[in-house]
Amino acid sequence: MGSLGSNNNYEDALISSDTIGKVITCKAAVAYAAGQPLVVEEIRVDPPHKMEVRIRVLFTSICHTDLSAWKGESEAQRAFPRILGHEASGVVESVGEGVSNLEIGDHVVPIFNGECEKCIYCKSKKTTNLCEKFRVNPMKNTMASDGKCRFSTKDGNPIFHFLKTSTFSEYTVLDSACVVKIDRNAPLDKMTLLSCGVSTGLGAVWNTADVEEGSTVVVFGLGAVGLAVVEGARARGASRIIGVDINPEKQIKGKSIGLTDFINPKDLDKPIHQELKIREMTDGGVDYSFECAGNLGVLREAFLSTHDGWGLTVLLGVHPSPRLLPLHPMEMFDGRRLVGSVFGDFKGKSQLPHFANQCTKGVVKLDEFITHEMPFSKINDAMQLLVDGKSLRCLLHL
Amino acid sequence: MGSLGSNNNYEDALISSDTIGKVITCKAAVAYAAGQPLVVEEIRVDPPHKMEVRIRVLFTSICHTDLSAWKGESEAQRAFPRILGHEASGVVESVGEGVSNLEIGDHVVPIFNGECEKCIYCKSKKTTNLCEKFRVNPMKNTMASDGKCRFSTKDGNPIFHFLKTSTFSEYTVLDSACVVKIDRNAPLDKMTLLSCGVSTGLGAVWNTADVEEGSTVVVFGLGAVGLAVVEGARARGASRIIGVDINPEKQIKGKSIGLTDFINPKDLDKPIHQELKIREMTDGGVDYSFECAGNLGVLREAFLSTHDGWGLTVLLGVHPSPRLLPLHPMEMFDGRRLVGSVFGDFKGKSQLPHFANQCTKGVVKLDEFITHEMPFSKINDAMQLLVDGKSLRCLLHL
Ligand SMILES: [Zn+2]
Ligand SMILES: [Zn+2]
Ligand SMILES: [Zn+2]
Ligand SMILES: [Zn+2]
Repeated sequence: MGSLGSNNNYEDALISSDTIGKVITCKAAVAYAAGQPLVVEEIRVDPPHKMEVRIRVLFTSICHTDLSAWKGESEAQRAFPRILGHEASGVVESVGEGVSNLEIGDHVVPIFNGECEKCIYCKSKKTTNLCEKFRVNPMKNTMASDGKCRFSTKDGNPIFHFLKTSTFSEYTVLDSACVVKIDRNAPLDKMTLLSCGVSTGLGAVWNTADVEEGSTVVVFGLGAVGLAVVEGARARGASRIIGVDINPEKQIKGKSIGLTDFINPKDLDKPIHQELKIREMTDGGVDYSFECAGNLGVLREAFLSTHDGWGLTVLLGVHPSPRLLPLHPMEMFDGRRLVGSVFGDFKGKSQLPHFANQCTKGVVKLDEFITHEMPFSKINDAMQLLVDGKSLRCLLHL
Repeated sequence: MGSLGSNNNYEDALISSDTIGKVITCKAAVAYAAGQPLVVEEIRVDPPHKMEVRIRVLFTSICHTDLSAWKGESEAQRAFPRILGHEASGVVESVGEGVSNLEIGDHVVPIFNGECEKCIYCKSKKTTNLCEKFRVNPMKNTMASDGKCRFSTKDGNPIFHFLKTSTFSEYTVLDSACVVKIDRNAPLDKMTLLSCGVSTGLGAVWNTADVEEGSTVVVFGLGAVGLAVVEGARARGASRIIGVDINPEKQIKGKSIGLTDFINPKDLDKPIHQELKIREMTDGGVDYSFECAGNLGVLREAFLSTHDGWGLTVLLGVHPSPRLLPLHPMEMFDGRRLVGSVFGDFKGKSQLPHFANQCTKGVVKLDEFITHEMPFSKINDAMQLLVDGKSLRCLLHL
């Protein structure tokens, strides 16, 4: 909790009323072309429109989705110049007309999967966060209200948005549905983790699977999301948490968070039968498995490593292959189930504040997830660390 | 409720203590070869062993699973001579050593998916009926305790069992885990329906999906199981129940049970897009869909006809094709879910008595499911009615 202390009143130091209603000139890291280094330069940020919020970003971190968009992996995603970034924390600088639940100075976290609080999904009591208007949409690169950009270069050319958040900038504009107010006692630096990876993994355990105390769990793929699954399962009191990863270094990290067992498929005689190994270890299979690898073979192993009768497999990994689910319909009759989870099924605005409080109280521990810290100007170095698989999250200070 | 009345004390008329511990000679319908007419003849039925029960079958009906085994559709199922039949109701004639929860004269219903009440599945509070020892097993054709048959021909040759029940006989022997005691006020003739088809469909609604009042439902395939889904949804207070079947005659039957809408895919311009039609009819999709057709194309339509965010598809149909699930992993991220259901997820011994009481009270209505009645001697005619798709259930009186 290094950031908690006398210096958590960021708004006093950073926010004045001078900028309200005006275009702000500030630093941002702009992506001008696929795979080219981001350019940290001065840009212009318009004031927030109706139901929008402008925030001063204080911390941001990088996730694999930023890398995909930066590399321009899918054609539809290629939109340049663009400000990437979707994991961050900061303070509200100003609010647009009609925004009633956020005020200047509020500590906030942006979310790419918004919550309008009005649509049938947001109002549903069922476990869903698929907001009609603000659900995740990687193709969207402008504001929802007018299809325009709030960013521009000093020459006046528009700069595209990314995932409704664009946090690689000192100031950014978001729909208020994509801004979560968090308690100012929460450690604001670590709250960046709530914007994406950690919420995705932990929410899959708490919301999607609703893992009970004493349950057995296996996690395939120990990146930030997989490790957040481990933390979520530990916090829920799971009795056994097995991690599976082909990178042997994940064992140490995983165990420091809460893994009870580690399997490296490369160490097994028949890697394809690791589900049998897991069933043997857990007296018939785990109660819950989490697929964070984005691999269809792993998906099948994850499914078959659960206990028949009630085993639940939660899909978290992205599966770009056009191949269909490698499961036969009759296999569904053994009582194993399969479900996908987006952003941990968190309804962001209404449920993340509680999550933040659990972090403040130490029920959830986030320290292990931030492996590096750097000034914002070194963002390209931070990108490279993630590309090389050397960091979980590198916290950039703006 | 035609059978309720002065004549519901079957045990007085039928049970005497003379037969206890002795081999009984009685009539049964024996299958001697695949697809050949059943032979109604005298056979011998041994007394029940430890933890077994011998029952006097009073009513039995025929299900498609009987037809499959009779035709010998799967090689592993071919075991002759054999006594088929698994839907029935009757009275306990005698009990073996150690049976404490059943007594002579009890009104009972056999179940092919038993409940030992001791294993981790039976004791689990989760929704599962996958008993470790007595789960459904179409390959099993002898008794669990000694791997032997309790039936024999008059020449002393063993006759194989079927689905742990073998109800096409005046007397049959079952594991006590496969015998459910029901209240003697319940209409015993209609209780045959609880042994399989109706429990499968209705339980999928009540237990597997747990459909709430006001929900919207679609049912693909309106055989006995599909129509039991309709009845279950009606009893739960579903606001909209859409039936889909290529047989136009199903519309009348379905509506008499509780369908609010009927779709014949043959009447649509683009039958393959009936999921869009259903989504249009229900403002985005139904809450629950039930696949009772055993067809992969229908399975996909059932899945896509549910509402994103929370739609649940329950698989009931048997899918003999080796083809895999026609769903892409990324389609799981729209919040639609898929689950299989066997025997309606009823834990038979503990949960069917309540179901029987709901029938007695009229909460569940079973009249529409029995379309024909015949004496047991006409069993081959009853088989033909089902082969020809002319009956839902033909009740045979023994
Ligand atoms: Zn992310
Ligand atoms: Zn919404
Ligand atoms: Zn059991
Ligand atoms: Zn059946």
